[in-house]
Amino acid sequence: VKIGIVGGTGDIGEGMAMRLSTVFDLVVGSREQDKAEASCTITRETLKNRGQECSLCGVTNQDAVDGADVVILAIPFRHVVPTLSTLHGFEDKIVISPVNPMEKKDHFVFVPPPEGSAALLIQKLLPKEARLCCAFNTIAANRWKALDEELAYSVPVCGDEEEAKQQVMGIVNRISKLQAFNAGPLAVSPQIESLTPLVLNIARYNRMRDVGIQFR
Amino acid sequence: VKIGIVGGTGDIGEGMAMRLSTVFDLVVGSREQDKAEASCTITRETLKNRGQECSLCGVTNQDAVDGADVVILAIPFRHVVPTLSTLHGFEDKIVISPVNPMEKKDHFVFVPPPEGSAALLIQKLLPKEARLCCAFNTIAANRWKALDEELAYSVPVCGDEEEAKQQVMGIVNRISKLQAFNAGPLAVSPQIESLTPLVLNIARYNRMRDVGIQFR
Repeated sequence: VKIGIVGGTGDIGEGMAMRLSTVFDLVVGSREQDKAEASCTITRETLKNRGQECSLCGVTNQDAVDGADVVILAIPFRHVVPTLSTLHGFEDKIVISPVNPMEKKDHFVFVPPPEGSAALLIQKLLPKEARLCCAFNTIAANRWKALDEELAYSVPVCGDEEEAKQQVMGIVNRISKLQAFNAGPLAVSPQIESLTPLVLNIARYNRMRDVGIQFR
Repeated sequence: VKIGIVGGTGDIGEGMAMRLSTVFDLVVGSREQDKAEASCTITRETLKNRGQECSLCGVTNQDAVDGADVVILAIPFRHVVPTLSTLHGFEDKIVISPVNPMEKKDHFVFVPPPEGSAALLIQKLLPKEARLCCAFNTIAANRWKALDEELAYSVPVCGDEEEAKQQVMGIVNRISKLQAFNAGPLAVSPQIESLTPLVLNIARYNRMRDVGIQFR
């Protein structure tokens, strides 16, 4: 399976690329291809120095969509509408949203759009043939990049297409020690997305770093 | 510290009474005192057969408020308004809400009142001197009652009064292996309450029993 990352040079996207490129063929997208190529060079060097093989190349966001079977939207919530308005070709793709609509006041607040969640908004913006799932919402950028540490977290995955969801869960389960859990249809995405402000609040008020979640 | 349980003969309340009465002095309330007394007799017998000492007595819900420093509202969301309209004397009490507003369709849905959460509604119904916290939201009734098993879960606690919240966290940390985490002000209560439909969905879609959460 070939995975594309839209926003692959952002904080989360770059960390994902480091982990995913050792397991999957990756196309890393950015608004500017130069930036994507530079980021991939760094990732390749980092992994080479660790003795790890990888497969990735830097492209535009549109090429990351076109060249992949599964597309991860590694973008902040505020970029969802502008980014998706410039991209096409999502028909028949599996699309993964790790996007969390939130704001930082004194504490972190879940601020979903009128649709109820980032994922439900994204579903409206994608062609109906695209198969959308939520996944990776609660894994912090710092965790993705801390390559010396296993990601021993639970990952709730939701989506309306059972086969696509199973594929996404299979991808999750191949990364470090992540464990995928089927959380139900896309309608539960607000429950998943609001986990992220919660764990950020718990980190903030208990002076912890990069709090993750395990279901048991 | 003396703890009162309003709704102490319900599913959750009865399980809580079994665990809490071995650590704290407990007054277990019910709409009918007879029912509370009968439930306490069973709890006392159960714990005696296990060689565990306990301290509890069955009273009315009003007496459970009057006789306690800390009052746990162990009632379903639909009972919040009718129950609180019959009770008084919450001034200066610490009140704990484990209440989760949700509905079961095909999956479990978080259905908060217009205030944003059960806790924010309860805050409106209580006198302003009451000090309200959310805690225990995600611990399933079956887990409370499975006395052979430790409760090795994380418990997010939120509230606006720092001292009351520290007291509640202290209570949480004395029960089995529960670990309290400060999640911030009462405004984050929607994030905590929506965890429960999420873990119920994860249990349902992964054929697991009584899923709990750990932050780490």
